[in-house]
Amino acid sequence: MSELFKQLEGVPLGTVKPSSEILDSIAWNEAGLIPVIAQQAESLEVLMMAWMNREALEETLRTGRVCYWSRSRGKLWRKGESSGQVQRLKAAYLDCDGDTLLLNVEQTGPACHSGRRSCFYVALGKDEATVISDPLIDPAILYAKR
Amino acid sequence: MSELFKQLEGVPLGTVKPSSEILDSIAWNEAGLIPVIAQQAESLEVLMMAWMNREALEETLRTGRVCYWSRSRGKLWRKGESSGQVQRLKAAYLDCDGDTLLLNVEQTGPACHSGRRSCFYVALGKDEATVISDPLIDPAILYAKR
Repeated sequence: MSELFKQLEGVPLGTVKPSSEILDSIAWNEAGLIPVIAQQAESLEVLMMAWMNREALEETLRTGRVCYWSRSRGKLWRKGESSGQVQRLKAAYLDCDGDTLLLNVEQTGPACHSGRRSCFYVALGKDEATVISDPLIDPAILYAKR
Repeated sequence: MSELFKQLEGVPLGTVKPSSEILDSIAWNEAGLIPVIAQQAESLEVLMMAWMNREALEETLRTGRVCYWSRSRGKLWRKGESSGQVQRLKAAYLDCDGDTLLLNVEQTGPACHSGRRSCFYVALGKDEATVISDPLIDPAILYAKR
């Protein structure tokens, strides 16, 4: 853990630091990424988990529109650029060791590429796993050329 | 994405598969791990993000007590084994491509090693970052020899 995050453990509530200093101390992984959890504002439903590099995080904080790093495509991914289902940033939080980000977002429609509201739709028990939600929109429509 | 998770995108709500088959299809990373989000049951507050290997996940599903894989210590980490702040599993969900797990848990006291309820206590804005919570318990007490 960086010295800065170690130091923040003990500071008073309300302590403020420049964001640039915080970003310098984030524990980016070997690919320069951190995992990002997106949670719907108000309902607090967890919608998805994706990844950001520093450029994606800076753009997200600057524009208020959530931008991830697509590991499969190897480029910035402005959520909703092909589906229209954008995420607006309400708040962002780093965890205690600066290696995970939690976003409060306003998600338009489905967050999941399958057309479901949330990506977490396979309930996993000891013996059985169950599909617990249906698509809101057929993905063939979601990703049709517009 | 595995064939199984691809197939689950299109199956009817309520479709059931054996958990062993699902676990065989999880997209474990190069270290054999997946990221795990822990969310407090009912309040839906996101408490922490950690990692599991297959052994940790199987133990968690079998016992109902959440067990992670500690990357820093290189061993199974039964949450609360040194702090007493255990997590009881209420439900587990895999995401659409089988590479992230979301847990609903009942967390006793703080989830964070700093003594705070949640690990996500650094609110990150465009220009400034702010510490937004105080420890519930002094970590010196939390980790004192018992």
